[in-house]
Amino acid sequence: MREEKNEVVKKFELVFGREVLEDLKRGENPTLELVSRTLSNAFFDEKKGLITLGNKKEKRSFFSLGQAKKFMQTLLVAAQLKKNIEEKQPAIGTRQLFYLLKHTIPGTNENTFDDQKTETDPIVEDIEVTLNVLREQVGLFAVPDGYIVGPMIAYDRKTGDSLDYTKMGLGGGAIPAMVEDNFYHIKEISAEFVLVVEKYQVWQLLNQEKFWKKNNCLLMTGKGQSARSPRRLLARLNREFNLPVYVFTDLDPWGYYIYSVYKQGSIKLAFFSEKAGVPKAKFIGLSTKDIEKFDIPKTNWIKLNQLDYKRIKEIKNYPWFKKKEWQEELSRLEKFGYKVESDSLVAKNISFTANTYLPTKIENKDFLP
Amino acid sequence: MREEKNEVVKKFELVFGREVLEDLKRGENPTLELVSRTLSNAFFDEKKGLITLGNKKEKRSFFSLGQAKKFMQTLLVAAQLKKNIEEKQPAIGTRQLFYLLKHTIPGTNENTFDDQKTETDPIVEDIEVTLNVLREQVGLFAVPDGYIVGPMIAYDRKTGDSLDYTKMGLGGGAIPAMVEDNFYHIKEISAEFVLVVEKYQVWQLLNQEKFWKKNNCLLMTGKGQSARSPRRLLARLNREFNLPVYVFTDLDPWGYYIYSVYKQGSIKLAFFSEKAGVPKAKFIGLSTKDIEKFDIPKTNWIKLNQLDYKRIKEIKNYPWFKKKEWQEELSRLEKFGYKVESDSLVAKNISFTANTYLPTKIENKDFLP
Repeated sequence: MREEKNEVVKKFELVFGREVLEDLKRGENPTLELVSRTLSNAFFDEKKGLITLGNKKEKRSFFSLGQAKKFMQTLLVAAQLKKNIEEKQPAIGTRQLFYLLKHTIPGTNENTFDDQKTETDPIVEDIEVTLNVLREQVGLFAVPDGYIVGPMIAYDRKTGDSLDYTKMGLGGGAIPAMVEDNFYHIKEISAEFVLVVEKYQVWQLLNQEKFWKKNNCLLMTGKGQSARSPRRLLARLNREFNLPVYVFTDLDPWGYYIYSVYKQGSIKLAFFSEKAGVPKAKFIGLSTKDIEKFDIPKTNWIKLNQLDYKRIKEIKNYPWFKKKEWQEELSRLEKFGYKVESDSLVAKNISFTANTYLPTKIENKDFLP
Repeated sequence: MREEKNEVVKKFELVFGREVLEDLKRGENPTLELVSRTLSNAFFDEKKGLITLGNKKEKRSFFSLGQAKKFMQTLLVAAQLKKNIEEKQPAIGTRQLFYLLKHTIPGTNENTFDDQKTETDPIVEDIEVTLNVLREQVGLFAVPDGYIVGPMIAYDRKTGDSLDYTKMGLGGGAIPAMVEDNFYHIKEISAEFVLVVEKYQVWQLLNQEKFWKKNNCLLMTGKGQSARSPRRLLARLNREFNLPVYVFTDLDPWGYYIYSVYKQGSIKLAFFSEKAGVPKAKFIGLSTKDIEKFDIPKTNWIKLNQLDYKRIKEIKNYPWFKKKEWQEELSRLEKFGYKVESDSLVAKNISFTANTYLPTKIENKDFLP
C-alpha cells in the first residue's frame, strides 16, 4: 500500500507549486498570495482571548523588480522544507536551514541568500502563516529552554523513550524543542493543574520541596520570557488535557507581561500566539494585594524606577490588559510604588512559597484573570 | 549515635567562628584572613594546565572604618549558609540568599545588605575560595543550562530517582544545577568519551542522528558559553571516570575561547576553574585545516570582522594559548580571513557532521591540544 501523502506536503505543493504553475500556464505573472504579517494585521481577538492574525493578504510576484528575488527565495525555502519532509530528514534549526539554502547561483556572483535574520527567517514565518502550520511541523526547531516535573508520561515517537516526569530528579525534565504530537506524544497525565513559574530559582526550590507531589500538579518554568516550546507545551496541556494553568511571576510590569505572553501571546508573534496561547490561564501572583495579605516584609520591596513606571503605562494600554481587574491592579502597583520579586518570599522562611503562599492562593482561588 | 558533624560546617566554624572569637579573647581586632580574588592573584598554572588562584591573602577587620561593614556582612553570609546546612534546608539561589539576608538593622535605618551583585555575591565567592568549597557544596546553586545524552546512569540522592541518559528522548537530559556527588551520584558509565558541542542546534541534530549510540559516547551541550554545572559535570566525567573530552565549536576566536574555558577555565572565575577545568580536553574542530580537508564550500565562509581580528590578537596573548599548535592555528585563521560556523556543515549534507566529519576526526585523532 502506498503511503498516504503527508498533509503538509500537499499544502506545500498546492500553494507553492500548483498555483504558481497555473499562473505560468495562463501566461500570467507567477504570484504567491501570502498572509500578511504586518503589525496592522495582528490584533487581540477578545472572543478567543488570544492575539491573532487577521485576513489581510499580500502578493509576491516574480515579474516585479522589487519582489523577484524574494519570490524566488520563498520558493527555495518552501522547496527545501518540503524536500526535508519527504526525505524524512531530521529536524534542523533555522541557522542550519540558512546554510542549507545559501548557494552561489551558477554563472553569477549572486548568492541565493546572504543573511538569516532578514532573509530566511521572515520567509519561514511567511510559510508558517500561509500554510497554517508551525515550523515544528515542517521539520524546523527553535532552541528550547525550560524544565517540567510532575505526574505526566510522554512518549518520544522518534526515540521510543517513555519519559516519566515524576522521576526526573532535582534537575527536572528538559522541555524538548519539538513538542508537537508527531514528535512528542503526551500519554498520561494525572496532574490536576499546571503551575508555571517565571524564575528558575523559584522553580528549583519548589521542586526540592516536592511541591508537585504534595499538590498533584505539573511544575514548569520557561526561565523568564519563555522560548517557543514551553509555551506550546503549556497550550497543549491546557487545550488537550483541560488542565487549569496558574502563572507565578514577580510583582512588576515585566512579570505581568510574561504572564500575558503565556496567556494571550504577543503581537510580534501573533500567528504563534494563536497556537501557543492559553486564554484560560490565571495569574496566581505576586499581586499587589498579596503584600498585605501575606505580610511581605518591607525590606523586600524595591522602589519602582522610571522604566518600570513607563512599562506600567504601556501595559495599561494593551487591549488584553483592559479587564477591570488588571486596570485596577496596574493602578494599585503605580500607587504602591514598589516591585517585589518572587524570590524574596524566602525571607518569610525558605518553605513559605511552597507551604503557605501558593497553597493558600490556590485554595482561595485568589487569582487575577 | 550522634551524627558526624558535617565537614563543611566544621570549616565554617573554624574560619568564621573560632578564629574570630580568639581574636576577641586576646583583645585583638577581629580579623578574617581571606584568599585574595584579585586578578593579580589568578594565573595559569602550566603544570596543572589550569587557571587557578595563588596564595595571596587579604585581611578583613572589624575595627576598620573601611572594612567594618564588609566584615559584618561576611559573618552574616557565613552564618546563614552554615545554618542552612545544619537545618538541612533545600539549596537556594544567590538571589534568594540575598533576600534571606536583607534586613533592616533594628533601631536604625541601615540595611544589612542593599545589593546582591556588589555585596552578597562577592562574599559568596570569598567564602568559596577561603573554605576551598564550591557554592554547590554549601547549599547554593546557579541557574543551569545544558543537556546531556548517552550511556550514563546517575542517581539523584535527594529524590531517589535513577536517571538513564540513554532514555531521555530527543530533548535529552537536563544537566541539573547541582552536580556534586552529595546531590548527583554518577553510578554507571559505559561511554568511551564525551563530545561537548558548543551549539544547541548542532547538538540537537547529532542527538537525532543517534551519534551517541553509534559512537558510544556522551553528547553534551552547554549552549554557547557554558554555565557552571555543565563545566563541573564535564570535569567530574573526566577526572573521576577518565573519559576523554572532545570539544566541538565554531571556527572563530569565540569558539576557540569557549573551548579554552572548558579546558583551562577563566581568569574571572579562577577558583571555580581549578575545580571545573578539564586540562586534558582536546579541540576536535572546526579548525582551519578542516576547511580544505573536508572541502567546506566557500559560500559557508563569513569574512572576519574587526572585532574578530581584535579577539584573535587577545587570545594569542593568553598564556594558555601559547602552545605552538594554537599560535599557528590563530595565525592561520588570521591569514585565512574567514570564520565558519559549525552549523554550516549541513550544507555538505544534513548528516555530514554525524556520519563523516566527527567520525573522521576522531578516528584520525585529528585534534588540537
